[in-house]
Amino acid sequence: MQLAADLDTPAVTIDLSKLQKNIARAQRLVSEAGKLNRPHIKTHKIPDIAAMQVKAGATGITCQKLGEAEVFIDAGVTDDILITFNIVGAAKTRRLVDLARRVKRLAVVADNETVLQGLSEAARGSGVDLPVLIECDGGFGRNGVQTPDAALDLARLADRLPGLVFEGLAVYPNNALNTKPFFSRAIELFKGAGVPLPVLSGGGTAALLTLADYPMMTEHRAGTYAYNDVMTVESGAATWDDCAMHVRATVVSRPTEDRAIIDAGSKVLTREQYFVKGFGRIVEYPEAAIANLSEEHGMVDLSASPRKPEVGEVISIIPNHCCVVSNMVDEVYGLRNGAVEVVWPVAARGKVR
Amino acid sequence: MQLAADLDTPAVTIDLSKLQKNIARAQRLVSEAGKLNRPHIKTHKIPDIAAMQVKAGATGITCQKLGEAEVFIDAGVTDDILITFNIVGAAKTRRLVDLARRVKRLAVVADNETVLQGLSEAARGSGVDLPVLIECDGGFGRNGVQTPDAALDLARLADRLPGLVFEGLAVYPNNALNTKPFFSRAIELFKGAGVPLPVLSGGGTAALLTLADYPMMTEHRAGTYAYNDVMTVESGAATWDDCAMHVRATVVSRPTEDRAIIDAGSKVLTREQYFVKGFGRIVEYPEAAIANLSEEHGMVDLSASPRKPEVGEVISIIPNHCCVVSNMVDEVYGLRNGAVEVVWPVAARGKVR
Repeated sequence: MQLAADLDTPAVTIDLSKLQKNIARAQRLVSEAGKLNRPHIKTHKIPDIAAMQVKAGATGITCQKLGEAEVFIDAGVTDDILITFNIVGAAKTRRLVDLARRVKRLAVVADNETVLQGLSEAARGSGVDLPVLIECDGGFGRNGVQTPDAALDLARLADRLPGLVFEGLAVYPNNALNTKPFFSRAIELFKGAGVPLPVLSGGGTAALLTLADYPMMTEHRAGTYAYNDVMTVESGAATWDDCAMHVRATVVSRPTEDRAIIDAGSKVLTREQYFVKGFGRIVEYPEAAIANLSEEHGMVDLSASPRKPEVGEVISIIPNHCCVVSNMVDEVYGLRNGAVEVVWPVAARGKVR
Repeated sequence: MQLAADLDTPAVTIDLSKLQKNIARAQRLVSEAGKLNRPHIKTHKIPDIAAMQVKAGATGITCQKLGEAEVFIDAGVTDDILITFNIVGAAKTRRLVDLARRVKRLAVVADNETVLQGLSEAARGSGVDLPVLIECDGGFGRNGVQTPDAALDLARLADRLPGLVFEGLAVYPNNALNTKPFFSRAIELFKGAGVPLPVLSGGGTAALLTLADYPMMTEHRAGTYAYNDVMTVESGAATWDDCAMHVRATVVSRPTEDRAIIDAGSKVLTREQYFVKGFGRIVEYPEAAIANLSEEHGMVDLSASPRKPEVGEVISIIPNHCCVVSNMVDEVYGLRNGAVEVVWPVAARGKVR
């Protein structure tokens, strides 16, 4: 039996009890809201964890990239997958159609005509009909059509193009100001046009707490909730005790009274910050700040910490954003009662295509 | 023959002519300054490129982590390696001593007594004498002893401890304000104490242009110069034409007139910025700004760009920091005259321990 305390550092650990509790809680929230749960696997990138989510009641999974979907389909976790990224180019649309043949339902999003044309070209005559959701910009300012009218135009195009089946609309994340009015108007518009909307897909971990505000949505895609992190805690969607992922790191230097250097830098913690200060929360020294990162060094400011760690001491860090940390390591260690119960390869790490 | 234009995206490419030119130029600068060249392999993490650096005249290589040194020693690139990171804990010091047995010289840095004691415990009686450089904080505010006196104390300890051989001092990067006075005082102090300083090791790519200002240094460790990036160009150490690494990405959406979404996000480009604005320079659209990144999406602000790319168009991005991009991908494509000449696995990617 390997003890967590004996893991060489840096090491990414997952508290299995917290993981199971987080999965059960999200499933309960989505089920109670009367929606289907389609967790996003980008958070963990591990088929075994997706299998836990499906076992808990998830209707299928969400992947961001084709390469992720290939890993999860190879693992046989589910036969109902949604890829929430515009798939562009013949190399990818061919892979998509090959993949679609292997499962019951492989749906994709699209937010422009070029993407729809490319999907149709690959699917027509292949015997596969690709379900398509039109992605809407519900206030996030990333992908997505800008108006319900544009969504209707694309929906009609998808319905006309061979090899495609229009299924509904998708948005990420549910947004109090914009998403609800956008979807309310869209539903009216589509109803008037006689175009059915069987799927309305929303998302977000913070949005798990406001599902009742989006009665029109039929399914929910959240990812981060499985592990949680500084961002979900600071957004009010979790507590520190809900954080299942930790980065174990060793203090390798104490160059000054107020500075510690740890062996976890941006190659593990990443430089993701968004609205968060610093680069992670040190569980044992919550007043200390991870003030900066080099690739291998974490620079810890101890000036506000009454206690100071010594060289050789191992600390546990809750990262700012768990999903991006999963992508930095080849394996994570599943812990229960202080021991390593499972070592999971991060099977879909680095799948950028 | 695979054309660069046919590579599926995102793809990280290396212009082989530029790489060779960059390697030759740095070697010339270091040789002309009368120093030994010990390039840092963290930039590329590829044994074939280290072999090119050694062939051009490098005396050996620098690694940041033990796991990197293992990859390069396995590949047989050189038998003279310096690891510039405090090695802490029995699991690692054992690996270090095993590795040291396999090469002519495997040197390490240390900046505190605990590290020296641990190295000595592993080395004593093993038949291996580990060369040790004392790391000094030459103004960077990361690792390193704070004073020349502290360096002398540790040097004497290293000389007393069995299994260790004190060799000199190391700093990163050479810093106009602090490094020179620190090293000048240290040389005087060590001379007065009768402690020889055969190795004085400095570093940095920008510092390649000011080597003459550090006549005391005996060797130089630079990494980024092999590829160059937005940071080296903006610091004046390279031109856009010297940038050998590009991230090829496809425009997958044009949700608005002034917004393009590309299929390279933080999982390829990373969120490294330091003093740089945006997240990389688009070669074909230099007035466009990569304003933000999600994991898979790059959000491009086209408002200042007179021309706007269409969905499906492939663009080339010079990343802010090439070293961290190498760590995000499993392979890079070496290009010559628009064709793929070599596909290199990034052999030391993800070696965080």
